[in-house]
Amino acid sequence: MKKILILGVGRSSSTLISYLEENAQKYGWEIMVGAHTLETARKKVSPSTKVIAFDVFNEQQLHDEVQAADVVVSMLPARFHPIVALACLKYKKSMLTASYESNEIAEMATLAKSQGILFLNELGVDPGIDHMSAMRVINRIREQGHKLLCFESFTGGLIAPESDNNPWHYKITWNPRNVVLAGQGGPACFIQEGTYKYIPYNRLFRRTEVIDIEGYGKFEGYANRDSLKYIEKYNLQDVPTVYRGTLRRPGYCRAWDVFVQLGATDDGYKMRNTEDMTYKQFINSFLYYSIEDPVKTKLYQYMHIDQDSDVREKIEWLGIFDDTVIGLKDATPAQVLEQIICKKWVLEPEDKDMLVMWHKFIYQESNKKKPTLLTSSMVSIGDDTVNTAMAKTVGLPLAIAVKMLLTGQIQLTGVQIPTHKEIYEPVLNELELYSIKFNEKITVWNETNR
Amino acid sequence: MKKILILGVGRSSSTLISYLEENAQKYGWEIMVGAHTLETARKKVSPSTKVIAFDVFNEQQLHDEVQAADVVVSMLPARFHPIVALACLKYKKSMLTASYESNEIAEMATLAKSQGILFLNELGVDPGIDHMSAMRVINRIREQGHKLLCFESFTGGLIAPESDNNPWHYKITWNPRNVVLAGQGGPACFIQEGTYKYIPYNRLFRRTEVIDIEGYGKFEGYANRDSLKYIEKYNLQDVPTVYRGTLRRPGYCRAWDVFVQLGATDDGYKMRNTEDMTYKQFINSFLYYSIEDPVKTKLYQYMHIDQDSDVREKIEWLGIFDDTVIGLKDATPAQVLEQIICKKWVLEPEDKDMLVMWHKFIYQESNKKKPTLLTSSMVSIGDDTVNTAMAKTVGLPLAIAVKMLLTGQIQLTGVQIPTHKEIYEPVLNELELYSIKFNEKITVWNETNR
Repeated sequence: MKKILILGVGRSSSTLISYLEENAQKYGWEIMVGAHTLETARKKVSPSTKVIAFDVFNEQQLHDEVQAADVVVSMLPARFHPIVALACLKYKKSMLTASYESNEIAEMATLAKSQGILFLNELGVDPGIDHMSAMRVINRIREQGHKLLCFESFTGGLIAPESDNNPWHYKITWNPRNVVLAGQGGPACFIQEGTYKYIPYNRLFRRTEVIDIEGYGKFEGYANRDSLKYIEKYNLQDVPTVYRGTLRRPGYCRAWDVFVQLGATDDGYKMRNTEDMTYKQFINSFLYYSIEDPVKTKLYQYMHIDQDSDVREKIEWLGIFDDTVIGLKDATPAQVLEQIICKKWVLEPEDKDMLVMWHKFIYQESNKKKPTLLTSSMVSIGDDTVNTAMAKTVGLPLAIAVKMLLTGQIQLTGVQIPTHKEIYEPVLNELELYSIKFNEKITVWNETNR
Repeated sequence: MKKILILGVGRSSSTLISYLEENAQKYGWEIMVGAHTLETARKKVSPSTKVIAFDVFNEQQLHDEVQAADVVVSMLPARFHPIVALACLKYKKSMLTASYESNEIAEMATLAKSQGILFLNELGVDPGIDHMSAMRVINRIREQGHKLLCFESFTGGLIAPESDNNPWHYKITWNPRNVVLAGQGGPACFIQEGTYKYIPYNRLFRRTEVIDIEGYGKFEGYANRDSLKYIEKYNLQDVPTVYRGTLRRPGYCRAWDVFVQLGATDDGYKMRNTEDMTYKQFINSFLYYSIEDPVKTKLYQYMHIDQDSDVREKIEWLGIFDDTVIGLKDATPAQVLEQIICKKWVLEPEDKDMLVMWHKFIYQESNKKKPTLLTSSMVSIGDDTVNTAMAKTVGLPLAIAVKMLLTGQIQLTGVQIPTHKEIYEPVLNELELYSIKFNEKITVWNETNR
């Protein structure tokens, strides 16, 4: 029996767990799930799976469980991965996560290698499937001897068209805190036509581009964090344009930017009196004082939102002018905003979510006059509110990689992301069985399309 | 002989040193000045003053000098005060600074008290003279039995009208790094008509108000950091409006906001290739890519700056579209911008600077129908580029307090700011001898003036 330890059971862990449970008997796996409370853990698993109430700060427990496991999957918030990783280093156990590779984890590369173990990060959907599907195309283009001129990649966790019934065209399908904090913590950076570009947070949601995906309509993309660090990881040093972005439905970004401009997404300080404050008073905290003007008027004037702007409908639909009492003590603006959006952007029992990914490659074939444009898109629709598209696209790559690790198909060690062929080929192939597949289109690149 | 140790000799220390030198013989003082290099120290002092090359991280030297001194004035960057303070605690020496009281220093209050010493901070101009001059009026209003309804206070380090010859009406009279970083590090907060207000950095320079000071024309004020913490320090718990601000000449803030919006004031990350980058390329790093549009056109379009806007003149005058090479390796945007402004906002040899302070008090007298408006303003013009208004207004309060400490006129201990009558009365009285005096005007408060 091989023992798989899964730490954390957030929204995105359902498919991961059910895949492993379905394959447990065949491969002789024992699955252990650790969650904050026994109750939350039990809700997520079938009776044959063991559960424990797990506390990452309980060192004894962490060490006991890691020692007893053959492989560890950390679904905990990213800041806890280094704590788990240290235990994994001690007991020579590999760890898989769907999170961005942090500096702390990256600095464990030599240690992990010398212990003969693998810390495989960014193995969810974004980051994860984006890396794998992009690398497959990039390597193919290069193997064919073509010269890559541009790489752009966009992903969005959205709502399926049949469940899309609010003016934002958005519902919460993952950690709502991350929805509020999206784009914070440093400028978005990328390279375009050979020039490094930096977008500060206060401009991020106004620097969007429109993307049309056949059969699914229009989306808008905004820059996602630091694209530059993938130049080396993807081996794109000679490519003049490298851009990673996040997808929303058109109009989302412009409306969300109102909260950014107000300062309502700030998680860096506690506001006074939030316990007794209403939503309207919360918004008023960021507005100028006026004896005469109501809060709504002040907001629209301050933000230059015209009467016929769709931003008004979106903003008002969220209930930000209501007299609902917040009831949170010493909350940051971001915490208040999270409460507001969580009440409205609810995935209803009959709702289905949608995961959309779109890559753009421009490359020059030596025998052709004009460059070639290749777009590759993937749309995954959730089964229900448990096996969401988000849970599937985050969980399946992790689950497949666990299987590959335990069956000796992955020999890599050290700290890695899934840009290696030995990982992405089998994972992408198996993902197709779950309808997670890419649709490619090739045309001649026309400069005026830019 | 009493020994005064002055650490750091920045722009604002000249008047401090010359005041102490002029009074040294009369009071029997020995003055010791520690600067980064002997040379910089010697330039600032007369031959009778001792100088040393001082390194705050040289613990032995720090302890030797503090032990040998009777009082320490730290003119070092604020982040070094706690290091000096620890040595002062050990040898029971009082320390004076012109910097904001940091949390680290505040937490030494009990220790300082038990050692019988005083850490007196915020004893420059802003913070410093603003506290003292405001407290004098606030206490007078209260002693007269009136009810304070509003307190606002604005200060600006500017350029004298006779030397004002650039479109920004601004030149560097203090640490240029602080000019670039002004307003960063948390929202500006204050209370207005009983409502707490928060302004994020990206809105700070667009939430200005106009202030007219007789004989000196119009200024604009923007919110300065956390006004709320002065509610307790000034004992203003029952006052519905408390606002502290910074003064610039009208138009400055709107133009500066262009750099804020671009992200060019960010000090949090290093840009790539800044060594070989030109000013124009620096600006282009923050702009969208275009095959056709020149950088200038892109900036004006991106920022919605009309052709007839005075912002264009200001921006272009700074030379940001020049092909000058930056030449700084791995610079942050803020470091590049500091280089740009330092080349243009130079205090020329014949220039004089100007320090402007303006307080507004509204109070209700019990026997009157309408509230009373009291404004109190102070304008100080520099003698030259050494004895600037900035150096005088920062240095004189410190110097006077040193004298008071050494002659036993201040008995306070612990961690304090100069809101105490025993400090502000004698300091303000002596400042008047240096033409640093306030001009009060009293009228009936008319709501429509708001």
